[in-house]
Amino acid sequence: MSFTYEYPRPSVTVDCVVFGVDESTLKILLIERDVEPFRGQWALPGGFVRLEEDLEAAARRELAEETGVTKLYLEQLYTFGGVERDPRGRVITVSYYALVRLAEHRVKAATDARDAAWVAIDDLPALAFDHRRIVEVARERLRGKVRYEPIGFELLPHKFTLTQLQTLYEIVLERSLDKRNFRKKILGMDLLVELEEFEEGVAHRAARLYRFDERRYRRLVKQGFNFEV
Amino acid sequence: MSFTYEYPRPSVTVDCVVFGVDESTLKILLIERDVEPFRGQWALPGGFVRLEEDLEAAARRELAEETGVTKLYLEQLYTFGGVERDPRGRVITVSYYALVRLAEHRVKAATDARDAAWVAIDDLPALAFDHRRIVEVARERLRGKVRYEPIGFELLPHKFTLTQLQTLYEIVLERSLDKRNFRKKILGMDLLVELEEFEEGVAHRAARLYRFDERRYRRLVKQGFNFEV
Repeated sequence: MSFTYEYPRPSVTVDCVVFGVDESTLKILLIERDVEPFRGQWALPGGFVRLEEDLEAAARRELAEETGVTKLYLEQLYTFGGVERDPRGRVITVSYYALVRLAEHRVKAATDARDAAWVAIDDLPALAFDHRRIVEVARERLRGKVRYEPIGFELLPHKFTLTQLQTLYEIVLERSLDKRNFRKKILGMDLLVELEEFEEGVAHRAARLYRFDERRYRRLVKQGFNFEV
Repeated sequence: MSFTYEYPRPSVTVDCVVFGVDESTLKILLIERDVEPFRGQWALPGGFVRLEEDLEAAARRELAEETGVTKLYLEQLYTFGGVERDPRGRVITVSYYALVRLAEHRVKAATDARDAAWVAIDDLPALAFDHRRIVEVARERLRGKVRYEPIGFELLPHKFTLTQLQTLYEIVLERSLDKRNFRKKILGMDLLVELEEFEEGVAHRAARLYRFDERRYRRLVKQGFNFEV
């Protein structure tokens, strides 16, 4: 089969930066390419957009195919279209970033990937194409957004301690936060539900668990509320 | 000439939402299409990306060609790739938004546009393709960003009064602001240079002019400063 057009056309791909937090490390999901170019090298999961599917659908399909990860918070990041970014010719890639509860997602490589793994963002191997740059832009977006939208909760278990929440912010923002100020700010927004449950299996005194009240947040936003950490 | 590929490919375009403020109205730059589809209808300036040019270069070229506008603050907005968005087939568009000092930009239609005009954003005609949706996303982005980055100054003359600045924010945020609080916040950030110049040709007492100190802002950002209005 072949396809003929009056004007030259670029190829269009999607690529995904999937963030997860493991203990106190920010990680992203990488695949080891099993096809040329960059065969055997690590890269972001992604691939060509099919003509009959939307961009986000393509991103979700490629993620599921190459890593087994499904059902996640996914948002468009940026479109990279530099003329020289792909040795195969002009390939424009629409990148997405995703946040997942790492413990809930078992990864499993398939199709164009011979392996899939969570890798610490501060310890990345050389990446194919301009994927290193895409990761940097995604990290910048996450850092900027986490302060003004409650997306950080997507990275935590559904029930968490205030210490876990603070650690998450410290990892993403890459700086330590004052415990008293942080708790005052977070609890002052009245978005957390205090549970009658406590963490288990810890040596120190078990801390209380909380959950994020998404419905309440949505209601507040309609009234002009601004989330801010 | 024709171009043949092994797999089907989408077309890729760029579209631009150019914002300007005229008196106290937020406007965008539209063109009247002189080609099918949607010939004779209003649309965002834009067009097909050439294989040898970067995405932003394509956006700047199309803007210059269709409207005569050059040299502007331009940023990528979002990529729209819905399967049904273009009657010509699968066309993925990378949208950009731009902020200009309206008075400095004379518009002049050419190439695929038979007319170009500044139109009040609250009084838009029916737009071609999904351009109405693109405008909405751009407006939302502008509203969100203007509070945390000093991009609003791109819409004002280089020298402005505090009242002009407040009006600008009120237009973009679509709500009135308390004059005392606004001035306290803006002057408190110490980013404005008080000039020894005053507005001219006004009936009331001439107000002092200010300019935004971009170099100082960049320096502060490096030290962890967050702009906020």
